[in-house]
Amino acid sequence: MQPPHGATGPLVAALDIGGTKIAGGLVDTQGRILLRALRPTPAGEDGDTVMKAVAEVLSDLRADPRWDAAVAVGIGSAGPVDAAHGTVSPVNVPGWRDFPLVPRVGESAGDLPVVLTGDGVAMTAAEHWQGAARGFDNALCMVVSTGVGGGLVLGGALLPGPTGNAGHIGHISVDLDGDPCPCGSRGCVERIASGPNIARRAVATGWRPPEGTQPTAAAVAASAREGDPLALASFDRAAQALAAGIAATATLVEINVAVIGGGVAGAGPILFDPLRAHLTQYATLSFASGVQVVPAKLGTDAGLVGAAAAAAEALRLEAFALSA
Amino acid sequence: MQPPHGATGPLVAALDIGGTKIAGGLVDTQGRILLRALRPTPAGEDGDTVMKAVAEVLSDLRADPRWDAAVAVGIGSAGPVDAAHGTVSPVNVPGWRDFPLVPRVGESAGDLPVVLTGDGVAMTAAEHWQGAARGFDNALCMVVSTGVGGGLVLGGALLPGPTGNAGHIGHISVDLDGDPCPCGSRGCVERIASGPNIARRAVATGWRPPEGTQPTAAAVAASAREGDPLALASFDRAAQALAAGIAATATLVEINVAVIGGGVAGAGPILFDPLRAHLTQYATLSFASGVQVVPAKLGTDAGLVGAAAAAAEALRLEAFALSA
Repeated sequence: MQPPHGATGPLVAALDIGGTKIAGGLVDTQGRILLRALRPTPAGEDGDTVMKAVAEVLSDLRADPRWDAAVAVGIGSAGPVDAAHGTVSPVNVPGWRDFPLVPRVGESAGDLPVVLTGDGVAMTAAEHWQGAARGFDNALCMVVSTGVGGGLVLGGALLPGPTGNAGHIGHISVDLDGDPCPCGSRGCVERIASGPNIARRAVATGWRPPEGTQPTAAAVAASAREGDPLALASFDRAAQALAAGIAATATLVEINVAVIGGGVAGAGPILFDPLRAHLTQYATLSFASGVQVVPAKLGTDAGLVGAAAAAAEALRLEAFALSA
Repeated sequence: MQPPHGATGPLVAALDIGGTKIAGGLVDTQGRILLRALRPTPAGEDGDTVMKAVAEVLSDLRADPRWDAAVAVGIGSAGPVDAAHGTVSPVNVPGWRDFPLVPRVGESAGDLPVVLTGDGVAMTAAEHWQGAARGFDNALCMVVSTGVGGGLVLGGALLPGPTGNAGHIGHISVDLDGDPCPCGSRGCVERIASGPNIARRAVATGWRPPEGTQPTAAAVAASAREGDPLALASFDRAAQALAAGIAATATLVEINVAVIGGGVAGAGPILFDPLRAHLTQYATLSFASGVQVVPAKLGTDAGLVGAAAAAAEALRLEAFALSA
């Protein structure tokens, strides 16, 4: 099929579904987003109301003549997801519990195949296709933000896992006697390294943000750049937990690179310098010690680009040249 | 080729190389060991002397007419190994550092292809082919003994990793501030859960073995079966560390089963009961919480059977029906 309007090949319709917004786009074989649509997520409403917002995003996309070039729909959703059953249960969208997202999207998308993955897996697909993990056959990609998520590329291929949640490094325990995590476990990477936990720990040790500003991880990072020892210590502890988690991953599945995105990664050297230092302590075995740590490249578009990439890879759409 | 002597198909010559012994065997398509050879490992000697023992094992196998049916050589070696370069550096064999085992075995094995993997990966291949992981597409297999090793099956296929060391769960940290491990890291699963560490911890808290016996993990298990609280506590702590490691693996790569072999697993319910209890605390996410924990089935033959299975899988020898 020849797509209209100057596009260069088939397109994938992508949905990036989070607790704040529902983004949609048409993604071409080069990872460009040709068209966008957006609705706020009515996260406090019932499941059908949330689904209505998704349908409106799809409707916006279908109203464009370029939709005719779409060959699949890729969904990256906040988790947990269950790709095996086509359902989602995002923590921040209580109206969706085992919600049959794949068949419902199918109803709004004609006869196109629909592929669901977790948002961490989608971000990983994007970084592997077009970003910082490009060219690496074995990679961990992470988002360190309000939460900590991730995904894996092994042997050159995305590893969604049977349910689409693989690579969920935020909820591995690196401190088996540590603080209780909302997930029910203890000492999870997220419980130590997420933005809110960086801020919480800094405040607990006596750090205060500049007058009139909120105690966020970004404020802690700003203080750390000015040399504040409490702010530096809180980032150091987050870096230590991330290092232990990355080392565990390298030891378990032999990755060569860890790509880190999300708001906390925006702290730059305040995070990356101590992370690389701690990593030399935890990644000790010969096959794990060479893992590189680099910032993500794609920013907020990773959700849409990755949802498209994960679908193209699952459906083996060769025009998207994912292993190039 | 029709193999002689009643064998039913092609054979793989297998080598299981450890710090104590070098075992060899001819393994048939059903995982049976038709012929065995054995030498003690001259672990304190120079590299060529150790290699001479390997060559003698191969020579014993080649002296049998059934060797003519061998189509490959599979090696499972104590690690670290480097399958990408064909070299091994076993911790307990100091004469071998980056020792070119694959080409040297090739010289003793005619023109057969030689496939090298770590012993944890080999054990995993065996349990997946003929043992407790059979029928599972996503599995972690572990040996808990003097050390703690392991391997992974993902998406139905063995995951050796680029260097043949993937699945090395013994050296992931589950206690980032914990005791220093000989590997250089802290709080590794092995540092808490290996047999010597179970015995060490029990002794440190005041437990003593029966008069005239050694303070081994088996002795601690015997005391635990009689209700000794210090012995039970040491096994409970080992179980907790194993649970945290298994949960981390389930969260990272979505396994459905964890198979545990090795001497410490011989403690039976003294290990498995607290392990399953702790696992409910650490494996909390929906996609990870269903992981089963079961004992290994193959015992000491897993090394040879697995070396053969890993080679057959790597070389796609269809007669071995590894995915049946």
